[in-house]
Amino acid sequence: MAERIWRVYLAGEIHSDWRERIENGAREAGLPIAFSAPVTDHAASDHAGTGTLGEEASPFWRDHMGAGVNAIRTQTLIRDADLVVVRFGDKYRQWNAAFDAGFAAALGKPIVTLHDTELDHALKEVDRAAQATARTAEQVVDVLRYVIEGKLP
Amino acid sequence: MAERIWRVYLAGEIHSDWRERIENGAREAGLPIAFSAPVTDHAASDHAGTGTLGEEASPFWRDHMGAGVNAIRTQTLIRDADLVVVRFGDKYRQWNAAFDAGFAAALGKPIVTLHDTELDHALKEVDRAAQATARTAEQVVDVLRYVIEGKLP
Amino acid sequence: MAERIWRVYLAGEIHSDWRERIENGAREAGLPIAFSAPVTDHAASDHAGTGTLGEEASPFWRDHMGAGVNAIRTQTLIRDADLVVVRFGDKYRQWNAAFDAGFAAALGKPIVTLHDTELDHALKEVDRAAQATARTAEQVVDVLRYVIEGKLP
Amino acid sequence: MAERIWRVYLAGEIHSDWRERIENGAREAGLPIAFSAPVTDHAASDHAGTGTLGEEASPFWRDHMGAGVNAIRTQTLIRDADLVVVRFGDKYRQWNAAFDAGFAAALGKPIVTLHDTELDHALKEVDRAAQATARTAEQVVDVLRYVIEGKLP
Amino acid sequence: MAERIWRVYLAGEIHSDWRERIENGAREAGLPIAFSAPVTDHAASDHAGTGTLGEEASPFWRDHMGAGVNAIRTQTLIRDADLVVVRFGDKYRQWNAAFDAGFAAALGKPIVTLHDTELDHALKEVDRAAQATARTAEQVVDVLRYVIEGKLP
Amino acid sequence: MAERIWRVYLAGEIHSDWRERIENGAREAGLPIAFSAPVTDHAASDHAGTGTLGEEASPFWRDHMGAGVNAIRTQTLIRDADLVVVRFGDKYRQWNAAFDAGFAAALGKPIVTLHDTELDHALKEVDRAAQATARTAEQVVDVLRYVIEGKLP
Amino acid sequence: MAERIWRVYLAGEIHSDWRERIENGAREAGLPIAFSAPVTDHAASDHAGTGTLGEEASPFWRDHMGAGVNAIRTQTLIRDADLVVVRFGDKYRQWNAAFDAGFAAALGKPIVTLHDTELDHALKEVDRAAQATARTAEQVVDVLRYVIEGKLP
Amino acid sequence: MAERIWRVYLAGEIHSDWRERIENGAREAGLPIAFSAPVTDHAASDHAGTGTLGEEASPFWRDHMGAGVNAIRTQTLIRDADLVVVRFGDKYRQWNAAFDAGFAAALGKPIVTLHDTELDHALKEVDRAAQATARTAEQVVDVLRYVIEGKLP
Repeated sequence: MAERIWRVYLAGEIHSDWRERIENGAREAGLPIAFSAPVTDHAASDHAGTGTLGEEASPFWRDHMGAGVNAIRTQTLIRDADLVVVRFGDKYRQWNAAFDAGFAAALGKPIVTLHDTELDHALKEVDRAAQATARTAEQVVDVLRYVIEGKLP
Repeated sequence: MAERIWRVYLAGEIHSDWRERIENGAREAGLPIAFSAPVTDHAASDHAGTGTLGEEASPFWRDHMGAGVNAIRTQTLIRDADLVVVRFGDKYRQWNAAFDAGFAAALGKPIVTLHDTELDHALKEVDRAAQATARTAEQVVDVLRYVIEGKLP
Repeated sequence: MAERIWRVYLAGEIHSDWRERIENGAREAGLPIAFSAPVTDHAASDHAGTGTLGEEASPFWRDHMGAGVNAIRTQTLIRDADLVVVRFGDKYRQWNAAFDAGFAAALGKPIVTLHDTELDHALKEVDRAAQATARTAEQVVDVLRYVIEGKLP
Repeated sequence: MAERIWRVYLAGEIHSDWRERIENGAREAGLPIAFSAPVTDHAASDHAGTGTLGEEASPFWRDHMGAGVNAIRTQTLIRDADLVVVRFGDKYRQWNAAFDAGFAAALGKPIVTLHDTELDHALKEVDRAAQATARTAEQVVDVLRYVIEGKLP
Repeated sequence: MAERIWRVYLAGEIHSDWRERIENGAREAGLPIAFSAPVTDHAASDHAGTGTLGEEASPFWRDHMGAGVNAIRTQTLIRDADLVVVRFGDKYRQWNAAFDAGFAAALGKPIVTLHDTELDHALKEVDRAAQATARTAEQVVDVLRYVIEGKLP
Repeated sequence: MAERIWRVYLAGEIHSDWRERIENGAREAGLPIAFSAPVTDHAASDHAGTGTLGEEASPFWRDHMGAGVNAIRTQTLIRDADLVVVRFGDKYRQWNAAFDAGFAAALGKPIVTLHDTELDHALKEVDRAAQATARTAEQVVDVLRYVIEGKLP
Repeated sequence: MAERIWRVYLAGEIHSDWRERIENGAREAGLPIAFSAPVTDHAASDHAGTGTLGEEASPFWRDHMGAGVNAIRTQTLIRDADLVVVRFGDKYRQWNAAFDAGFAAALGKPIVTLHDTELDHALKEVDRAAQATARTAEQVVDVLRYVIEGKLP
Repeated sequence: MAERIWRVYLAGEIHSDWRERIENGAREAGLPIAFSAPVTDHAASDHAGTGTLGEEASPFWRDHMGAGVNAIRTQTLIRDADLVVVRFGDKYRQWNAAFDAGFAAALGKPIVTLHDTELDHALKEVDRAAQATARTAEQVVDVLRYVIEGKLP
């Protein structure tokens, strides 16, 4: 009988290596996880609309086209996920990360947030909707190992 | 036969008078709308947990308690709403506003965003999930009048 | 105990008097119905976006803005309806009428279509998803009277 | 771990080669997609009812039988899809394409429309409900590549 | 604050006075219930299609039209009900009563069945899906009084 | 890429060979279908409760226990099915077949009914909720072939 | 425009006066709440089945009948509630209180638990699913006042 | 064509060998079942939060953290299950078992309870929401064999 594959979506910050650290940690731990994520190539993501559907002069509509194409990917993968990890870094406004968290919460998906303590107060609503708040990628791996295999580090 | 009452939830920024301007505009236009909103008294909101459930020494759990109590209100009213208006101002991170937008989007609620153009790029995912992006409270009133009565200003 | 009010949404063609004939017929029959409809003023509907949210040079995005504002109204009222009547006339492509029918069908709403026999073959998928296909506004009133009061004409 | 297979339903026009062009493009790009579609043999589709369930003299009921049998296929595959592409050509009324779009929209499925600019105004409601509007089959392939692999052409 | 009105749908047999007995019993007990039911005039019900939508020669399609019009009423009222009572008598096949019970069960509606013991074995699947099986209309009234007011007879 | 397997649930009559005829026909046609069904061994089905959970003196509760155990199977498989075929024979009351049809209808599952014309009037509500009414097992196979492969016999 | 009435269901312990204290507190605070609850007359509740549907010799089935009748009330009112308060006392096993909490949680209803600290470890899963854990009925009133009026005590 | 794998979640008591007995019995019977369960290592389960996310001084919040991490596992697996078996032993309060049962019930999952007769009265609400109440692990295996293969022991 095939092992259950857990589907974990990694939402949020795209300017640090937290996804690689979680994916590497999970691989080293031998966890049966299929990770997914938004497109993390910032330049590609910003041109998702005009790069596929053609030129657009207005910045607002250019973003609108791009956000539509990106949403096909992100909303499909979030709906498909067993668990959504949402990372908030210290730069940028990252409203899309919070948007993804709200989207996941309304679908009843379990959420793990990942951020430093100085963001705690600003993220209290998002953390409350989560089942866990981690401070390091390693803690997320520990949560995944426990959830899937029932083992503590 | 009773007129239909539209339920409109006003999410987001709590440090400017945009809610009053929309509510006043709707009243002057005679629109049948029952507005709702999060608790907009910042101090009360921050003490929602400890002010009702008792003291808590840890800042993280204090926020956690408060966010839980606030979520009873906000998530009930969003689920109940016909339309969610989400306002982003130029201060603070306002992740809860983006969270509310994601929550509403996953429930299939129509959304109107309200923010200045300099936030456009940062809010592109939220704007894409919305049916309209307004720049002024007056525009939101115009949208409400049109949606409810079919009349342009 | 208050009488049940039936909510009936009248979708589709906006260039003939079929809505008035159904509403008049229902009123004369004393049926407890709250009718709703899209904005039927063609000019207003086409300017729903630019008339509320501001100018837009591109015809595509102008329509996009208008369709977003109109969708707030139509999708809310369709979700709210007990029954959706969809009228197809002999002019224009009326894809929005078929779109509304598909939207209502996926929500499990009962549908009554209203159109002439020469459109039967082109509308076969829509008619199949409907509980009834009527040829005249008077037949729709007869269906409503039967559904609500159990009386045949 | 198995690669995610994306399920893409190709709705609409059956009289041009747009499906082949998308399927060929996706195959050449090596995209992991399982395409599905309505029955595109027009004659078979028109006889779906009488060809399986027996003769029927009335044209209306003949269409009704056929549309029922076709709906088993189309609605199952749309419910099953990650993404629905809807093509509108310049001939025929294609109400079933718009119906499918409305059906997909109410289920929260992402939609990509595919049509020429001269249909823009007539299709504004459908385009608004879509995440992207493409003009060529190649653009649809570009969107699919980006959505699945995060790469621009 | 207004008293809660319970909505009770009375499905099934139309050839005995069980509905009147339940409605009278509930009225005498002063219970706040809004009862609803299918059209119980057998002749009208059989002509629901042709009496509203026009003549039809084929008996199968005549029934099909009638069943469609009746379904607008029955499925709307079942979706709207807090509780569905399903009565099986000793005559006729009453497949629509069992169909209504299955429909209500899949929607998570509580069901009370009402029938004599000689039908027990044949109705075991329906009774299992019900919260109670009553033998008399008076027992149904007793259940309603208990459910609404917490009082035993 | 793996072929889509269609899941077809065969509900209703257990005293004739209609299931075998459909399954054989589908196999001969090479259709990729995973059939499922209730337990069709009448004696086993009647003892489903007492044969697994222990003795029970009362006939009503014996049936209740059995129906509960059978419901685990039937409702799981119906929820899992792409298509539900419901067969009504000329014997027994077969209320569970009609119950299954109602259950499937409320879940939005496509239904094909299979019965002789003399049952048409009694089954009009069930037939109306179905996408097709077949008279022979061979017609059901023809529908399945068309639905899956788009080919007429 | 009518004030919003909040519907609050009070689940759990029936042997102390906590419901009265909450209802009195809410009335004194002038809060617009429609409270509901299971039948709290222990003797009536235990006879809910036999007192309405007739005698039953087996204790197991007697309870089964009673639980069915009670479930009509409790599940309807929980589905209808905006908020579910669940009280655990120090006596009895109160599995139905925990069952109600799980039922409410799966429906996405906000929950407030009410119990002493010595039950904390045993109730950790239920408390986690709740938005707040209160220790006194007065704290529940404070939460309700804040949620509805935005005011701290 | 691949055999259907049934997903069975084993909720409740973690201090006896009932899970092993069911799993062994199912394996001996050759049943195609993928079993899942909460983490049954009591010590690990109690440290699920602090063992993964870091220290926490307060017992209440320590439990809260642990329950959150455990809920990621349990609620995912319950949502994923075809059938939930809930075991109540004679020790501890086991509110989480009853919570899981309520959660499963609201999702429409079939439930089998497993407990001794002396718990019958206290568990009547949970048993009523179940499709079967078993007294031994062997009976559960018999139910599983019947449900999957249609065979009595």
